[in-house]
Amino acid sequence: MVKCIEWSGNSLRIIDQTEIPRRLVYQELNTIEEVFESIQKLKVRGAPAIGIAAAFGLYLGMKNGNYRDKADFLSQAHTHSDFLIKARPTAVNLRWALQVLLEKVANQPEQPAQLVDRLLEFSVLLLKDDQERCNRIGHYGAGLIQNGMVILTHCNTGALATAGIGTAVGILYTAWQRGKFFEVLVDETRPLLQGARLTMWELQQAGIPATLITDSMAAHAMQLDKINLVLVGADRIAGNGDVANKIGTYNLAVISNYHDIPFYVAAPLSSFDPDLTDGKQIPLEERSSQEITHIWQKLPITIPEAQCWNPAFDITPAKLISGIVTERGILNPPFEESIKRLNFKNYQTQEV
Amino acid sequence: MVKCIEWSGNSLRIIDQTEIPRRLVYQELNTIEEVFESIQKLKVRGAPAIGIAAAFGLYLGMKNGNYRDKADFLSQAHTHSDFLIKARPTAVNLRWALQVLLEKVANQPEQPAQLVDRLLEFSVLLLKDDQERCNRIGHYGAGLIQNGMVILTHCNTGALATAGIGTAVGILYTAWQRGKFFEVLVDETRPLLQGARLTMWELQQAGIPATLITDSMAAHAMQLDKINLVLVGADRIAGNGDVANKIGTYNLAVISNYHDIPFYVAAPLSSFDPDLTDGKQIPLEERSSQEITHIWQKLPITIPEAQCWNPAFDITPAKLISGIVTERGILNPPFEESIKRLNFKNYQTQEV
Repeated sequence: MVKCIEWSGNSLRIIDQTEIPRRLVYQELNTIEEVFESIQKLKVRGAPAIGIAAAFGLYLGMKNGNYRDKADFLSQAHTHSDFLIKARPTAVNLRWALQVLLEKVANQPEQPAQLVDRLLEFSVLLLKDDQERCNRIGHYGAGLIQNGMVILTHCNTGALATAGIGTAVGILYTAWQRGKFFEVLVDETRPLLQGARLTMWELQQAGIPATLITDSMAAHAMQLDKINLVLVGADRIAGNGDVANKIGTYNLAVISNYHDIPFYVAAPLSSFDPDLTDGKQIPLEERSSQEITHIWQKLPITIPEAQCWNPAFDITPAKLISGIVTERGILNPPFEESIKRLNFKNYQTQEV
Repeated sequence: MVKCIEWSGNSLRIIDQTEIPRRLVYQELNTIEEVFESIQKLKVRGAPAIGIAAAFGLYLGMKNGNYRDKADFLSQAHTHSDFLIKARPTAVNLRWALQVLLEKVANQPEQPAQLVDRLLEFSVLLLKDDQERCNRIGHYGAGLIQNGMVILTHCNTGALATAGIGTAVGILYTAWQRGKFFEVLVDETRPLLQGARLTMWELQQAGIPATLITDSMAAHAMQLDKINLVLVGADRIAGNGDVANKIGTYNLAVISNYHDIPFYVAAPLSSFDPDLTDGKQIPLEERSSQEITHIWQKLPITIPEAQCWNPAFDITPAKLISGIVTERGILNPPFEESIKRLNFKNYQTQEV
């Protein structure tokens, strides 16, 4: 399986996802600024993947600095961390990964020179930890898939969205490896076409049968009984189970509800923000009009002066969600209670 | 207002809508084959407009023929008519316009040479009749629009879809001329982007404030109370009020229903097929995968071998529709009864 984010020994090696499926281009990121830019421009994307990228970004930003003492080291680390968090506002994994890192180094007895090494060590562990979380999500979620099903998925939540096999698409990989036979309906996910570009590409590599539709065709497919299950990812999950995810997720949740089709979210605990009481508190990124008015910044598809509204995410209320697949098992409604039972203080898998 | 279809005296002058908004290109169609091709390739589109185009296409196909007698004339006219109907299967206006024409000439006492002239005369009347129907739909529909509203519309149902001011967008034009102030949310309407290309262009020309969104953003906008009314057109309406319209219409109807937002269809009587008991009997055109895999046949947006499903229309069940605006007024549920009360035998406005 393709790795969208790896530590090469000296630099962070990423796949530039804005080039897929035209070309498979790797980039070596050597500075915190390059990591910031790669997240902001969606070269690295997917909530778990941008968390891992940010961790290495913090290391790259700190590794050549001069620090008077540990307090100075931590102060500068916080400044760099605040910078990285601003790259994208909605996915909480970015903040989560940096917080884990900062807490870890704060608890170390060493001096700045050693702490820099620790940042790298913990970043590598976070990356391995994300792979393990994906495997477990795949394990628990695979039970949802029956032979002969048609599963609709949105955006990209596979190997290109995490350090591992992915979340919602990771479930598809796992079920496929276990010998389940099913088909996937992939919605293209306008405006940035992550479904058409990335998920179609990943499923083709895995040999899983996939059919591409435009976003507005899903309801028609449901009306014709062509969809048995909807599986999506998450960028942030509030304490009551409300889910922020790629724009169009809420639309799918409403039409799934109308057609009585199970609607599942797959996400690691690093995507939860249990202190938020509901989805209204999640900041939703709005992006440039040009993402709508032009295909890949080059082909205009509307009048030159078109006014646009381009929210990159929406909120799906908990009441429209059948279950949330995590690395600790599937959470069932009422989510307020099932999320409360998770111990977020002990968020690490054993590797970290 | 722009005219997408006009009789120039010798030929049918159309706007090639596949070029909008890049260029405003007129084409002169001189043969039935050119008319067929222009309908099939969506150079002329919109249910009412393709009906009118087909009428002139029949005239162009008949005008240079040799006919033994009236029976021979009518037989050849039917053959040409059957050919034209095949250009697109879903919109019933195509069949309706040709049937009107064939019935009209069958009832004339004249000989073939005069009947050819009658075909042209009646086609011109059908065109004027469509303009009048649009005006009346605008008149009745304008009452739905209040100051300050935000109205969502789908695909293109304006001057580019009819011989007149349009159906759903015609209502917007009429309300605007009457001094109502409102804003329009235009969904781009993948795959062929009629909203982004055509409706945005028309509303700009009219000075009506419009904001472009992708199709999957409408639900999010509704959740944020940003939409007060949804107005769409129709390609065919069954006797029970089920509506076939551009793919994505059903999606909008389901999410409007969930958010308690009024959902109105605007269409002339020429779009009704009252003999069909429900929408299941309406043939739904499926179009080429390339419409999804490439933007305008040139820019690929997915893997080269992508399998696609590309239904061009969907069915919105009557129960999700608040009302149907026609040239005879607004039909209210239960539509089975309100449609029965329409006298389709007397379908002509006074001009025809």
